[in-house]
Amino acid sequence: MPKILKTSLDSTLPASFERAEIKTFVESYDNFLFDCDGVLWLGSEVIPGIPATLDWLRSMGKRVFFVTNNSTKSRQQYAEKFSKLGIHASPEEIFSSAYAAAVYIKEVAQLPKDKKVFVIGMDGIRNELDNIGIENFSLQDDKPLFEDSDLLQYKPDDQVGAVVVGLDRNISYRKYAQAYQYLRYNNGGKGALFVATNADSTFPMSGTMYPGTGAILAPLITALDREPIVTGKPSLNMLEAVFAQHKINPSRTCMVGDRLNTDIQFGLQGGIGTLLVLTGVNQLKDLEGSSIQPSFIIPGLVNLSEAKD
Amino acid sequence: MPKILKTSLDSTLPASFERAEIKTFVESYDNFLFDCDGVLWLGSEVIPGIPATLDWLRSMGKRVFFVTNNSTKSRQQYAEKFSKLGIHASPEEIFSSAYAAAVYIKEVAQLPKDKKVFVIGMDGIRNELDNIGIENFSLQDDKPLFEDSDLLQYKPDDQVGAVVVGLDRNISYRKYAQAYQYLRYNNGGKGALFVATNADSTFPMSGTMYPGTGAILAPLITALDREPIVTGKPSLNMLEAVFAQHKINPSRTCMVGDRLNTDIQFGLQGGIGTLLVLTGVNQLKDLEGSSIQPSFIIPGLVNLSEAKD
Repeated sequence: MPKILKTSLDSTLPASFERAEIKTFVESYDNFLFDCDGVLWLGSEVIPGIPATLDWLRSMGKRVFFVTNNSTKSRQQYAEKFSKLGIHASPEEIFSSAYAAAVYIKEVAQLPKDKKVFVIGMDGIRNELDNIGIENFSLQDDKPLFEDSDLLQYKPDDQVGAVVVGLDRNISYRKYAQAYQYLRYNNGGKGALFVATNADSTFPMSGTMYPGTGAILAPLITALDREPIVTGKPSLNMLEAVFAQHKINPSRTCMVGDRLNTDIQFGLQGGIGTLLVLTGVNQLKDLEGSSIQPSFIIPGLVNLSEAKD
Repeated sequence: MPKILKTSLDSTLPASFERAEIKTFVESYDNFLFDCDGVLWLGSEVIPGIPATLDWLRSMGKRVFFVTNNSTKSRQQYAEKFSKLGIHASPEEIFSSAYAAAVYIKEVAQLPKDKKVFVIGMDGIRNELDNIGIENFSLQDDKPLFEDSDLLQYKPDDQVGAVVVGLDRNISYRKYAQAYQYLRYNNGGKGALFVATNADSTFPMSGTMYPGTGAILAPLITALDREPIVTGKPSLNMLEAVFAQHKINPSRTCMVGDRLNTDIQFGLQGGIGTLLVLTGVNQLKDLEGSSIQPSFIIPGLVNLSEAKD
């Protein structure tokens, strides 16, 4: 059973007891990994009190990292978003699923230098591939496609070693037809490497939901009957990227997130602490009957600062 | 075990024996349902001898019907394709998955007259809905979509009673976002009726494959965690549409097709005879270990005419 960190929001317990619990929690960890949307901000609005809470953690010598499945921006672009919202973060502290995909292709899959990558996704993926020195391209020609015979221009090409799929608000049948050809017929029928930044089926915005990267991916999985390597949460590729670049003691590290099936699952699989906040997707009722249980629960990240001296 | 109709292609048996077998088969049925692509034509090329074979069946008083999962054309447009390929067929003899979807929405689901249908698909579906008197619309505005906030224009609308999805070579994130909103939030959260013309994951063209309607559908199934009503083969909606409009004795009816998991499955579930032709997708090797076994197999539909007197 997760421990619910009592806060002033819960008026049934004495304040002194609440504060001590939170203080003990904060003292237990040196490193915090934060999911962003639903934890730090909601869409384009920062959650009040978050910048001060993060500054306070830093002031106590805690290290903070930001771990997001959002693949639409590069780490540099993401740092600019943080800055606009009044949160200090350097690109080195930010780990996105697009960055994890680029690292995976270069370091783990070791794509040969003469091969290139076909991208279904927004700028974030292409920028991260550029940064890491991997040639990549996409399809920009999205004129309407009315004739069957138009499809015959989309053929296998063994110069393409991998296909990466992330959230793409400009998907098209052309892109799927081209990706399908590489993934099914390249490499003597074995197909190109198939990588997805993440597999979230939906994403929340302004109180409603829209199809997510898992939905964007689904046509290829269905047509190919083949699953991609997923580099975002809950896959541990992203955690391995953090550990590879920063000396961190896992037992002194806690993942903070709003989603059980990505953030909390990610922390549990990585053997680190887990804190669920209730400012995003999942609520207390979602814990009933779930096999994924966080170590700790708190109403919002800002409530941590109730442990301030 | 299916009976393989021996033909002159199999030189190990005496010709007289072959001919007798085929003759017995043809005499066993009064009505033939034909799949089109892979049976009558391959892409835009008619298979040689097919028009004469169909004419010969008609000359013996056999009734012929054409049953296709292709939803991109209306029955009227399909009749024009037949005509161009030299095959005589009237719109009343043609049953397409788009037509079956329109009949399903009107007759089975009984969509209220004040509700309309949102279509992801090509003209075929919209034309069939028009023909049957059901108001329908699609999204034509497919300008690139770069801002998250652009999505907020896609909202639920209780005037939309159903969403129909078929093969659409101009899919877009906008269409999926709009369909998702209707299917998840309309009708007090029950969502609009969800109909798919068919669920073929790929379609063959010119010796290669491309993503099919099952792939086009997959983002919505994934994002909604909800399955559609499928009106094309192997669903029996199409067979019920044929039986409703033509007085036909099922025991004197045979389905002829090139795909085990759509055509032959459709015939088996409908309790009619089944003949697999080897001019399309499936070959003899695909029968090994398959739970779907046709009653009869013949190299090509044209071989039936070896039973000619």
